[in-house]
Amino acid sequence: MKILQEQFSISTKTRCQMVDITGQVQSVVRESGIKDGDAIVFCPHTTAAITINENADRSVPHDILLALEQTIPEHISGFQHVEGNSDAHAKSSIVGCSEQVLIKGGSITLGTWQGIFFCEFDGPRSRRVHVQVRGK
Amino acid sequence: MKILQEQFSISTKTRCQMVDITGQVQSVVRESGIKDGDAIVFCPHTTAAITINENADRSVPHDILLALEQTIPEHISGFQHVEGNSDAHAKSSIVGCSEQVLIKGGSITLGTWQGIFFCEFDGPRSRRVHVQVRGK
Amino acid sequence: MKILQEQFSISTKTRCQMVDITGQVQSVVRESGIKDGDAIVFCPHTTAAITINENADRSVPHDILLALEQTIPEHISGFQHVEGNSDAHAKSSIVGCSEQVLIKGGSITLGTWQGIFFCEFDGPRSRRVHVQVRGK
Repeated sequence: MKILQEQFSISTKTRCQMVDITGQVQSVVRESGIKDGDAIVFCPHTTAAITINENADRSVPHDILLALEQTIPEHISGFQHVEGNSDAHAKSSIVGCSEQVLIKGGSITLGTWQGIFFCEFDGPRSRRVHVQVRGK
Repeated sequence: MKILQEQFSISTKTRCQMVDITGQVQSVVRESGIKDGDAIVFCPHTTAAITINENADRSVPHDILLALEQTIPEHISGFQHVEGNSDAHAKSSIVGCSEQVLIKGGSITLGTWQGIFFCEFDGPRSRRVHVQVRGK
Repeated sequence: MKILQEQFSISTKTRCQMVDITGQVQSVVRESGIKDGDAIVFCPHTTAAITINENADRSVPHDILLALEQTIPEHISGFQHVEGNSDAHAKSSIVGCSEQVLIKGGSITLGTWQGIFFCEFDGPRSRRVHVQVRGK
């Protein structure tokens, strides 16, 4: 049983953005040499998140961000946090700061249409992503 | 340390539905022979999700689906995805495509009222569920 | 490879509350003696959740709870569950009943502003939190 931890950086360009990081995660898994197991993809930020969703049609991330914006608008009466990014913190908690993916034969076993996304809710910023690969 | 991956299929009957899959996950855990560890339950689809919630009273899944429908309605002005199921993609990302459960003494250790559900948001469809059991 | 399961109790004071449990989780990790690996923090209740978000400024948990309350209000027309806490069940499913954190050098490796929270949505109640530490 092996455990390997890696990190990589990304730069986001707008306030809300979904960045496809499937390739970077797959690279970490390949370099680990682990054939069967799983990987945790973890976001160490409180105004961002990790999700798995469709990466074939770019309109899907657009529409997910739109639905989130409609669900939790930037300004809600009663918000107290002086940084003005409370919506980003709330979106982070409902999408969640990590995902886990299964590894088989040295590759992550996503569904046909699935990709792994870093979700920026308070950019543009420089961000980091942690990946832990476990298995044998 | 053992790692075992299994899959099973389910058929959903309506557009939005929560299907109790606790028994199927428990069966995979029992057949693995693993006594202490954990299981990842992973949905390889982008318009569905996995959640853990009450499976004693059938009104609870009904009300969760109703709250999700009210939060993210099927049609939001500005949606661009031509398949017309953007709400299902967004619900998938806020509920999440996987859950993890702990295993003790060969059984999953859910709380008294907890069950594991496959959440369909764009059915009816044939779906698959991946389960990875890890431990000893 | 070691696996250790522990539990601790907390008491919540109001209907909706985010309780910082970072210290308790860190204690379980330290006592496990595990240096590299990960921990699952699992909530065995169906009207509560676990999340990771900012624990530096107390206005952040306040605003997250406010955003959740605005997203899924206590009373939605059509709710059938007679206990009257359907909103709490829905919030539990969108925030999620578990989180996973990475362990390096014997400590959980959260980002600068991250803390682990137990989210109460139907308190006040006595609650339990399960922690499983895995690694070497």
